[in-house]
Amino acid sequence: MRILCDFLTIMGLLTKAGSEYSLGLEASLFLDRNSQAYFGGAARFILDPQLINPFWDLAQIVRTGRTTMSDQGTVSYDHPIWVEFAEAMAPMQFLPANEIAKIVAGDGEMNVLDIAAGHGLFGIAIAQQNPMARVTALDWPNVLAVAAANANKMGVADRHTLLPGDAFQVEFGGPYDMVLVTNFFHHFDVPTCEGLIGKVSAALKPGGRCVTLDFVPNDDRVSPPPAAAFAMQMLGSTPYGDAYTLAEYKGMFEKAGFVTSEAHTLQKSPGTLIVSTKA
Amino acid sequence: MRILCDFLTIMGLLTKAGSEYSLGLEASLFLDRNSQAYFGGAARFILDPQLINPFWDLAQIVRTGRTTMSDQGTVSYDHPIWVEFAEAMAPMQFLPANEIAKIVAGDGEMNVLDIAAGHGLFGIAIAQQNPMARVTALDWPNVLAVAAANANKMGVADRHTLLPGDAFQVEFGGPYDMVLVTNFFHHFDVPTCEGLIGKVSAALKPGGRCVTLDFVPNDDRVSPPPAAAFAMQMLGSTPYGDAYTLAEYKGMFEKAGFVTSEAHTLQKSPGTLIVSTKA
Repeated sequence: MRILCDFLTIMGLLTKAGSEYSLGLEASLFLDRNSQAYFGGAARFILDPQLINPFWDLAQIVRTGRTTMSDQGTVSYDHPIWVEFAEAMAPMQFLPANEIAKIVAGDGEMNVLDIAAGHGLFGIAIAQQNPMARVTALDWPNVLAVAAANANKMGVADRHTLLPGDAFQVEFGGPYDMVLVTNFFHHFDVPTCEGLIGKVSAALKPGGRCVTLDFVPNDDRVSPPPAAAFAMQMLGSTPYGDAYTLAEYKGMFEKAGFVTSEAHTLQKSPGTLIVSTKA
Repeated sequence: MRILCDFLTIMGLLTKAGSEYSLGLEASLFLDRNSQAYFGGAARFILDPQLINPFWDLAQIVRTGRTTMSDQGTVSYDHPIWVEFAEAMAPMQFLPANEIAKIVAGDGEMNVLDIAAGHGLFGIAIAQQNPMARVTALDWPNVLAVAAANANKMGVADRHTLLPGDAFQVEFGGPYDMVLVTNFFHHFDVPTCEGLIGKVSAALKPGGRCVTLDFVPNDDRVSPPPAAAFAMQMLGSTPYGDAYTLAEYKGMFEKAGFVTSEAHTLQKSPGTLIVSTKA
């Protein structure tokens, strides 16, 4: 126990005075389950052996160009990891969701589809920001339970509808003023993304917007580091995922009848926001 | 392959110009097998699953206060990891071994016992520095083959003798002017270290010196970070190992009849050199 506590002190999580240890400032804030800012769950998700284990045989992944996980990797239907993700990552997405809502929520009546909603925070933040917005959250059924609980907790359940299913199979309904596609395109190859963007376009009103949040590297694909390095995460955990550049997103959206795609750098996230407007 | 190379560029191991990649400066120097400074083998040793896997269940290790590896952990007799260690870590020990030899080798006839010699570099450097020194290298038989090959390669084989066996069982012979105990005490508890120091004392001439190289934290046990954090490595891979403070070493050596123990900070190693002189 002494060796463990000394090690945690060296790592900065504890402080030590004589032979007494105390919780450090960052640990009190982020790793105490009673703290409102607790996100120990995010560490558990990021270190989940299911996500890490493929990288022990990175050579094989590079040889075949895809994850060594069976079937579709983490993008298999109803993969349980996304329930863990939705629960664990929500505390880290609260600030970015609010930042994005301030950029896109506007005012007045607004019909929003939140694709692969996960914890649901991106749609929920829009519903909080704009009292006239109604959000339809789409995800696998097991994950939607997390989004529903969050919508309830955050007081927008009456304007938050669930659409269980696979984004590539289920009817979107609509028409919508806005479709959110947050942290989703990176799991797929370009033809699959283009297919989904076409389906999004068909579900949008004329002049409607598709709001993409994703890791968007510069054209050199090696900067900025967090966005560029994310491609490796997709190589190891999906069959065909990647981190796409802004030029690639613009190309995909143009093909589907979007006339502009504007990028917004975010303060609260390593991701980039791309707002694409339909003709 | 593109994702891998971009990732290695982000990590600083490659450089990228357009779509062409080149080996970066540090990678050329340290990770090219044709480089004299190659130490990719050290990375393989440090990342050996045998050493890492126990830490996936650190809670269990802390509960029982010892490694979850069977038997004696990595200190089992003739554990094959030490052959890998001797081969892999030699390139990282070349500079520290020379630095230490300059401090302790002196001149004139000198009979040196190198306990747990491993790659043998610490004894070999003394034999190179002092042409009158004769070194007896003690280690398990499989490991001594590596030390013998290094002694041969470095031109001191005629003054380098092998003593195969377990340091706690084998007769040391002697008497010696100097006994080297490099990166060894940390594997054991205090009574075991004291037993070994007594055996070392008995094998030394009057006024002879025991030269310890080890990770020696300050009394607070949380600084300096590399030495203090090493205790965790021992907790996870041995039954009773630890990183001992200078005060603890002084106490152990005094009990065995050593009159002084002087510490030397090293430039080329995170370890501390302790030179203890027998009455």
